[in-house]
Amino acid sequence: MSEIKRQAELAKRTEPVLGSLTTEQKNEALLAMADALVKRSEDIISANKEDLERGAASGLSSSLLDRLALNEQRIQAMAEGLRQIVELPDPIGDVMEEFERPNGLLIRKKRVPIGLVGIIYEARPNVTVDAAGLCLKSGNAVLLRGGSSALSSNSKIVEVLHEALAATSVPADAIQLVASPDRSSVDEMLKLNGWLDVIIPRGGRSLIQNVVQNASVPVIETGAGICHTYLDETADPEKALRITMNAKIQRPSVCNAMETMIVHRSYAEKHLADLADKFITAGVELRGCAAAVELAPVIHPAAEQDWATEYNDYILNIKIVGSLEEAIDHIRQYGTMHSECIVTETKEHADRFLQEVDAAAVYVNASTRFTDGFEFGFGAEIGISTQKLHARGPMGLPALTSTKYYIYGNGQIRE
Amino acid sequence: MSEIKRQAELAKRTEPVLGSLTTEQKNEALLAMADALVKRSEDIISANKEDLERGAASGLSSSLLDRLALNEQRIQAMAEGLRQIVELPDPIGDVMEEFERPNGLLIRKKRVPIGLVGIIYEARPNVTVDAAGLCLKSGNAVLLRGGSSALSSNSKIVEVLHEALAATSVPADAIQLVASPDRSSVDEMLKLNGWLDVIIPRGGRSLIQNVVQNASVPVIETGAGICHTYLDETADPEKALRITMNAKIQRPSVCNAMETMIVHRSYAEKHLADLADKFITAGVELRGCAAAVELAPVIHPAAEQDWATEYNDYILNIKIVGSLEEAIDHIRQYGTMHSECIVTETKEHADRFLQEVDAAAVYVNASTRFTDGFEFGFGAEIGISTQKLHARGPMGLPALTSTKYYIYGNGQIRE
Repeated sequence: MSEIKRQAELAKRTEPVLGSLTTEQKNEALLAMADALVKRSEDIISANKEDLERGAASGLSSSLLDRLALNEQRIQAMAEGLRQIVELPDPIGDVMEEFERPNGLLIRKKRVPIGLVGIIYEARPNVTVDAAGLCLKSGNAVLLRGGSSALSSNSKIVEVLHEALAATSVPADAIQLVASPDRSSVDEMLKLNGWLDVIIPRGGRSLIQNVVQNASVPVIETGAGICHTYLDETADPEKALRITMNAKIQRPSVCNAMETMIVHRSYAEKHLADLADKFITAGVELRGCAAAVELAPVIHPAAEQDWATEYNDYILNIKIVGSLEEAIDHIRQYGTMHSECIVTETKEHADRFLQEVDAAAVYVNASTRFTDGFEFGFGAEIGISTQKLHARGPMGLPALTSTKYYIYGNGQIRE
Repeated sequence: MSEIKRQAELAKRTEPVLGSLTTEQKNEALLAMADALVKRSEDIISANKEDLERGAASGLSSSLLDRLALNEQRIQAMAEGLRQIVELPDPIGDVMEEFERPNGLLIRKKRVPIGLVGIIYEARPNVTVDAAGLCLKSGNAVLLRGGSSALSSNSKIVEVLHEALAATSVPADAIQLVASPDRSSVDEMLKLNGWLDVIIPRGGRSLIQNVVQNASVPVIETGAGICHTYLDETADPEKALRITMNAKIQRPSVCNAMETMIVHRSYAEKHLADLADKFITAGVELRGCAAAVELAPVIHPAAEQDWATEYNDYILNIKIVGSLEEAIDHIRQYGTMHSECIVTETKEHADRFLQEVDAAAVYVNASTRFTDGFEFGFGAEIGISTQKLHARGPMGLPALTSTKYYIYGNGQIRE
């Protein structure tokens, strides 16, 4: 048996215990984990230094090194994240439906943990803590596979979490970190049917696509966001400016930021030149269709692949359309079913856009940046699902659960 | 573009219309489909004859030929199935949650169709009608890929359904049948990410495993059932006999039939010999562990692979255990997370079994044969999910839906 299967087996054995823990027991463990992280922050920072030195030597970019770096403050933030999970309602054990059949069978549908959750992510040590905390609160065991350049940090963090769990009711084996830095450990996880119940990839497009294309274990696809905002003929100019600026520049690196602004021709003729100047002033590079370039020469011509690119950067595509239908068609062609917005004062147009655009979250007159577990009031999330099964949009604790039918009989048989 | 992609594209284009249909429009279409099947039954039967002749010539077994065969009565039953779907509540458009955020955003989570559903199945023409009807009522387009030996029947059925839809509000393109009998058409479907939103395999183990192992499109795994019934120390003998006989022989060929009976040693010592005789009398071949053979010599010794076999036949494994834990461990090792039962008069044992056994449906004192959409009161089902994401257990119409967040703002931006 391979090392990963052995770890999966250890984790899987904890499932009956995990599924039976009380909310109090889980919360005690989360608080113990939070305290231990803070108490052991020096050790974690020194393990993190090893990763940073190795990363710098191997030529990691400064932005990657920044994501990887830990300090007292960031460790405090990770601990605070665990404390926030304590505050979230425990989904396990909820009776979702209960009914009695004419033959007297009592059927109860209860919320149960999924079982063993695999998380594949990049060199962000905070995901280690975050994922472990969310899985624990939802009664799941977790097999973590973080980016190899964060391996020293992740190993130390999991060591600290295991020590913290030793004094609680939660079996330490419930949290497993894949210790192999090889790519083959990812390949093996993707095929662990019978051990892993689901894999959730968290990271960039290539990581997610590798998981989606090659996993035989069920996957929840997350993250990729080519989000559009459509300024309709009757858009209110003040709202349009505020919403599009926010959607683009409040945090361009995230999946719910706007990548393409679609503008109705009649609105563009009046407002595009001004709007384009404001984006330029804010440091945003603009790329547009021929009609956009003509209306505002500060816009560079866009190439075909630009419409299909998630920039995560200070770059914005601008597309001029002649109708609502054309806007919806563009989104159907290039969108990633994440978050899409219409700015309009025409209720019929809003209703039609919301109904026909196929995305996890569809907005009228608000920034797409709100697609987020905290902003929806769900608390911490394990990711944002961009596929249509199991969970769609921000995934809070209930997305980490399954269901089970409990059936109470008294000798009933099927006739 | 390949023929299958072209069909998927045609089906996908119907999604906005399908998602906006009223319940009445969908029901009218279902009734028109039902009437057309009956009216055109001669044509369907003659197309079916072609399949049967080809099948007989190529040496299909008589049981496969029987599954494939259509007659007036079976076509009436398919039509009746569609009429029953008319009676089911329409899940689309349900507001599942609605809340207002402190910033004034109104967030509404609504039930929407999944989009384009792929069904891969064997040579059972009734699945063509069944799947088309369930997908239509839930607002989904469907790409059907039936067994190649039913191709003439399926083509004629879909032709009849298309003709029936011509006079309704439902676009005929919403139902697509893959016309290629090659295995490569299945391979292509499995990789149709971006077109297909989900694939549901319906059939035997090898069909399902091929889909699970090779699809990059999300899959809902269905069907495989190695179901156990555990007779606890305090099982009531009358209930034990009634439940186990029903679970084994009421219909041995289905996934929720019992394959292995687990018996506590102290119960076995008193009752196994008698119970074994009853099974033998009913025509059931018995295979057991050494302890079982010793208690009842009519039982043949079981081989290791027997415990992992879904017989779907008049064969039953019998395993003697010394404790509830041992029974649960056996199920954990060999079960397929479908339906598992304990027969006991001890409430603590029942509670522990229900809590710790990981399956879609867990029973106390009732036959596992009840795991079924009709028996649960859900009406027709698209399959029984044996995995833990999206839907678990019998999948009625709600399992064919996704959700979408509608967010209503008034210029809100994220600070």
